[in-house]
Amino acid sequence: MPAMPKPVFLAAGAYTVSLGPGRREFNPRTPRPGLEHYIRSSGEAVLAQISDPGLIDEGVIGNFMAARFNRQGHLGSLMTIVHPALEYKPALRVEGACASGGLALATGIKSVLSGLADVVLVMGVEVQNTVKSLYCADYLAGAGYYAGERKAGPAYFFPGEFSVRAGAYGAMIGPALARQAMARWYKNAVENARLNPAAQEYHNTVPDLLAQGLTPPNPRTFTEHLNLSDCSKVSDGAAAILVASAEGYRRLGLAREDVVEVAGFSQVAANLTTPPPDLTEQTTSRVAATRALAMAGIQAEDAGIFEVHDCFTISGLLSMEALGLAKAGGGAELVLSGATERAGRFPTNTGGGLVGYGHPTGASGVRMAVDLWMQLTGRAGAFQVPVAREHGILASMGGNDKTVVSLVLRR
Amino acid sequence: MPAMPKPVFLAAGAYTVSLGPGRREFNPRTPRPGLEHYIRSSGEAVLAQISDPGLIDEGVIGNFMAARFNRQGHLGSLMTIVHPALEYKPALRVEGACASGGLALATGIKSVLSGLADVVLVMGVEVQNTVKSLYCADYLAGAGYYAGERKAGPAYFFPGEFSVRAGAYGAMIGPALARQAMARWYKNAVENARLNPAAQEYHNTVPDLLAQGLTPPNPRTFTEHLNLSDCSKVSDGAAAILVASAEGYRRLGLAREDVVEVAGFSQVAANLTTPPPDLTEQTTSRVAATRALAMAGIQAEDAGIFEVHDCFTISGLLSMEALGLAKAGGGAELVLSGATERAGRFPTNTGGGLVGYGHPTGASGVRMAVDLWMQLTGRAGAFQVPVAREHGILASMGGNDKTVVSLVLRR
Repeated sequence: MPAMPKPVFLAAGAYTVSLGPGRREFNPRTPRPGLEHYIRSSGEAVLAQISDPGLIDEGVIGNFMAARFNRQGHLGSLMTIVHPALEYKPALRVEGACASGGLALATGIKSVLSGLADVVLVMGVEVQNTVKSLYCADYLAGAGYYAGERKAGPAYFFPGEFSVRAGAYGAMIGPALARQAMARWYKNAVENARLNPAAQEYHNTVPDLLAQGLTPPNPRTFTEHLNLSDCSKVSDGAAAILVASAEGYRRLGLAREDVVEVAGFSQVAANLTTPPPDLTEQTTSRVAATRALAMAGIQAEDAGIFEVHDCFTISGLLSMEALGLAKAGGGAELVLSGATERAGRFPTNTGGGLVGYGHPTGASGVRMAVDLWMQLTGRAGAFQVPVAREHGILASMGGNDKTVVSLVLRR
Repeated sequence: MPAMPKPVFLAAGAYTVSLGPGRREFNPRTPRPGLEHYIRSSGEAVLAQISDPGLIDEGVIGNFMAARFNRQGHLGSLMTIVHPALEYKPALRVEGACASGGLALATGIKSVLSGLADVVLVMGVEVQNTVKSLYCADYLAGAGYYAGERKAGPAYFFPGEFSVRAGAYGAMIGPALARQAMARWYKNAVENARLNPAAQEYHNTVPDLLAQGLTPPNPRTFTEHLNLSDCSKVSDGAAAILVASAEGYRRLGLAREDVVEVAGFSQVAANLTTPPPDLTEQTTSRVAATRALAMAGIQAEDAGIFEVHDCFTISGLLSMEALGLAKAGGGAELVLSGATERAGRFPTNTGGGLVGYGHPTGASGVRMAVDLWMQLTGRAGAFQVPVAREHGILASMGGNDKTVVSLVLRR
């Protein structure tokens, strides 16, 4: 894997509150802000950090399912509402299910590498609380093979898919151990979210999170191997960050300590119509991590901060293994050892992750980049951890491990 | 506008039949092929022209509304069904309404410019004949500002939008002259389509196309200033082509005469939430054309073959003006002079265009590139024209002139 052809940086990130069940201000019975609000809020928060919006050369927006949740396509054109300086510049939407935000980052990075752009505004957005949960589950099932597996699958399609993974993982390492690790992941996620004012679980007051997470799943009410507490949230939100060349960030009035470098990245797709080769492994995630790490010339354990795609607690465990931080089946022990906690060896999803912050699907990959950028530049406020090493790693996953974007960042 | 940072080429294009009303084999009452069929057909037709599918580094697929027409997202992952060699390579979907195919081309070009890819499979697909026409019109209205203008607009939203443009254009140059030019555009489109076996209007046997096109529009049955014959078709189809570096196309076993060079390109977005600054001009299209031409260092009249986005006959006329081939209001006279016909000075949409070939929305931009590649390399078969100059120009438009991708190609 060759190194990055030229230096590329991330700068000036921001994200909105993840609005949805759990937030005190969320009321399912009153009108709520639409796509425009989230696009504008996250974009303006980025612009507030730079000298001149006119320096932005291009826009990329990740979005999964506004076509169904909001009947709105054409979000590249919609994102120009952020500032008149974007008018008549390139802007497009990219989509790869829940990896749409990750793809937006990869697309922005390639634009800078192409030499045609020095500063790209990369955004992700999703507004999902527009329909009842069964419809929501059906819309999100468009991340799977709709004409195939989805038609044969359960109404709550993705919880069902990852319940099958959790069952296979439990069969390999013992179901009690798997359940303990998933419960611990949930506890860590909510504890981190309680420190992040933008997180959906910021207001969570459950006294014994571990006990809640240890509840035996009930297939009659949800799925065989997952509880609702194992799931990421249905969320409205947006995140934005700049991708820039060295000349680009300097022109914006930023210094090297304000930005993080993209030391390596990868973008990997696998065949949507075939089942995963191994239910106990996120194979595509492993391929993506291996390539991004090789590009950066480091191992995963050389990094000091991590953002992984825990759409479900089980995918949190499998993601740590896919990064190479634990061997097959070792993700559970890793999490139970406390290594992924704030004070652990591998602080992971320190702002709450998808389980704790929330999962506005198209925004998540960008939100992860913002969290890493904040931690690596000391901007994470109440959820800041002391980052002991100079690298951070991001893994943004779409569908059942079918599209994965991985980034290695360096402060 | 700087020149292309390095040479990029298009090669090995192909597209499917545009299936829909008008084709003899189209039967609205029997099941029809889905997305997979079109993706596979167009992709395999590209692969049949190259030495080794393993040389493809990356995939990009343009699609507008499979989320609603087919309940399917995540088409980057789906496009890997074309060949096992695509597994674990980058692939993503891009979307910008009816310019989605154009954006797929621009994204593939940028990937090659980034130095990370030497060969990119660029595809576009749409399967739209899955719902009744009023639903179809509502889905397509997601190319406009759904929460704003669309809610206030007519059921047949885009025909309504372009009817307003046709009315404004008629008010400027005289309604009879405008109607004559639109009728002539329709006649040219169908006559070209009758030479293209893949075109939706290939089977059209209407004896007097001009008389049909001259029918006065009836606002009680459709729109005030447009007839159904002024509209592009509702279509199922896909198109694919390779974007390659010089090293890339040589490795594929192709020679310089098999490929066309991208001499210039541009990608432009305008604010979705604001009305067009001038109803009688496609302003964004003009900006895009100006930039692509400047990058290539030519004027539009230096080119010998043209592909423009005639979603409606009126947008055909306005597109010729946006390219700079006629002054404001002069597009009608240009078309009536015969200049845009096969034997004219500026042969345009020689395979039928959106009105004649059909408009599988996400595929159209790529289909246009394939038609130009075929004409410039002498592969257009029954609809080949003698191309007197070495350049061809493409303009792919999304929504009401809100996203435009323009390419200047050189044989």
